[in-house]
Amino acid sequence: MAGKVFFSVSMSLDGYIAPGSAGELMGRQWMELQRWIFPQRFFRENLKLGGGGEEGRDNDIVRETFERTGASVMGKRMFDAGERMWPEEAPFHTPVFVVTHERREPWERPGGTVFHFVGDGVGTALDQARAAAGDRDVRIAGGAATILQYLNAGLVDEFSIALSPVLFGAGIRLFEGVDADRVALERTGAEPTERVTHLTYTVRER
Amino acid sequence: MAGKVFFSVSMSLDGYIAPGSAGELMGRQWMELQRWIFPQRFFRENLKLGGGGEEGRDNDIVRETFERTGASVMGKRMFDAGERMWPEEAPFHTPVFVVTHERREPWERPGGTVFHFVGDGVGTALDQARAAAGDRDVRIAGGAATILQYLNAGLVDEFSIALSPVLFGAGIRLFEGVDADRVALERTGAEPTERVTHLTYTVRER
Repeated sequence: MAGKVFFSVSMSLDGYIAPGSAGELMGRQWMELQRWIFPQRFFRENLKLGGGGEEGRDNDIVRETFERTGASVMGKRMFDAGERMWPEEAPFHTPVFVVTHERREPWERPGGTVFHFVGDGVGTALDQARAAAGDRDVRIAGGAATILQYLNAGLVDEFSIALSPVLFGAGIRLFEGVDADRVALERTGAEPTERVTHLTYTVRER
Repeated sequence: MAGKVFFSVSMSLDGYIAPGSAGELMGRQWMELQRWIFPQRFFRENLKLGGGGEEGRDNDIVRETFERTGASVMGKRMFDAGERMWPEEAPFHTPVFVVTHERREPWERPGGTVFHFVGDGVGTALDQARAAAGDRDVRIAGGAATILQYLNAGLVDEFSIALSPVLFGAGIRLFEGVDADRVALERTGAEPTERVTHLTYTVRER
């Protein structure tokens, strides 16, 4: 059985998922947006941030999101930012397909992450990710522009948002440029935890 | 005991609370945004839309929002749109303070709604609304620009959002122009119902 295509992001109440520039990544609002995930045991282990951490429902959700993912797709800017930040053992542990015009040989990391650089478009990247994921799911990892390309193309089955009680006022909006005449949503899950509201939506065509 | 100052709106997942122009008010996304409230018994009675209707948690929330409100404040554009749409027995049944440069005598409607036109700014309108509300709360009814003026001025204590599973892609954003360096939030409630996710936030100063 083929897996699903999904994305999973933390979003501010005013719709932003990232600051406008990488230089602001350590800004206050950005930290508040991510505050729920940093203390989670699974997140800490996976990013080699040290032992310990919380093990409640937030942690389960982080782990479940990881475990369902058989392959990821990401844009070039997300890869470039991550290449500088991820530990040597990159946190994916699966194939990752990077949509880029740059030609580059696959880049294998310790721990099972292999980055493949796909030059012929989002459709091809997704096809390769599906094949690699087998019966697990494909995660469109980001950034926002890449997620929107897939969403507007009707290629996303469902998504999850950790809605965080913070306002950005500026930055990169998740749904900027969404084709609202095409994308209809059904809310299939809503689970408040102490820090965020976990929301899941299934995408329908209008 | 003085009441609180709050607002309560339905918001699309991408952050919009209204279409860009009044002419689009009957558009598909706008109807989807409001879909949760139309069938509610209290809403139908109050807007003279006819008897019957649902009586679940959504209906309770609509009624509770009405009952806590001792006075409302609104912008001139919201008033102008409402003046054309509200039934003769306007749905407030309390004093309503309209922030406007237009000089006009108070306008009394059957059923207890009295519109007062306040020419000297949002602070004065709120002072008058507080006095009129007594120990009940003051609702900043809208539109988005008026809500933002009060929020950025530090005058809103808390707010409620009925987050609706619809994407607008264009229109009037609730938090456009928010002073994110000033407004901090604490999520104090989250209650999913079948159609929407009811979220409440308490406003803190940073």
